[in-house]
Amino acid sequence: MSFHKGEEIFLGKQLLGELYTCSSTYLNDPEAMKSIMEEAANYANATIVQSVFHHFSPHGVSGVVVIQESHFAVHTWPEHQFVSVDFYTCGATAFPEKAMEFLVDKLNAKQFDVKEVDRGHLSKIQEFGNINK
Amino acid sequence: MSFHKGEEIFLGKQLLGELYTCSSTYLNDPEAMKSIMEEAANYANATIVQSVFHHFSPHGVSGVVVIQESHFAVHTWPEHQFVSVDFYTCGATAFPEKAMEFLVDKLNAKQFDVKEVDRGHLSKIQEFGNINK
Repeated sequence: MSFHKGEEIFLGKQLLGELYTCSSTYLNDPEAMKSIMEEAANYANATIVQSVFHHFSPHGVSGVVVIQESHFAVHTWPEHQFVSVDFYTCGATAFPEKAMEFLVDKLNAKQFDVKEVDRGHLSKIQEFGNINK
Repeated sequence: MSFHKGEEIFLGKQLLGELYTCSSTYLNDPEAMKSIMEEAANYANATIVQSVFHHFSPHGVSGVVVIQESHFAVHTWPEHQFVSVDFYTCGATAFPEKAMEFLVDKLNAKQFDVKEVDRGHLSKIQEFGNINK
């Protein structure tokens, strides 16, 4: 499974989300953040393998939902009302954009940036494979 | 804790590593990859919270080492001898560059790209916070 962009083929796609001016309600609560992230993963049609969330000292939550299609991670800074999110996916069955939309809405982010990064550039993989044969 | 770059301050730092033409030895073995990733995390001075690794069908491994300082994830494509790695860190106690070096060496990657992404741009956080007050 892969992603096509014009003539380029990539094995993975990653969204890096920066969510600003979020509501503080959930950002210091690992159980709440786990539940929201799992809801977002389901909404994105990802298959959850396992979730690991923990509390930072003195504040903040860090967690990863490991999904069949790769991973979906979050780190929160309640003192800055800031949330940083990563969704890495392989294959075409999960829709990371949907997870981002869900989080922006649920966390009430008033500003956000989402950057897309292509991973596993197939022609590079093949070129380097040939060079090193 | 934060990262300074000139006058800019960031809450997090992320390394995105693309490792090409790796040795196939470990790439289809979740237990081996878990062990290598935990070794790399220790070498980078990260504090491991929990690791979750699973096997893809028909081949490949996907896994995350959740660390106190954030997360460290890997996805392998043995059929392409390709490995994609993410190390997200907050604070100045862990050294993700060391984890990348360790993996390049251990997986015998003959080519690699490592891109650094700054996360949590503090002046943006503050600017958006003021706008939305």
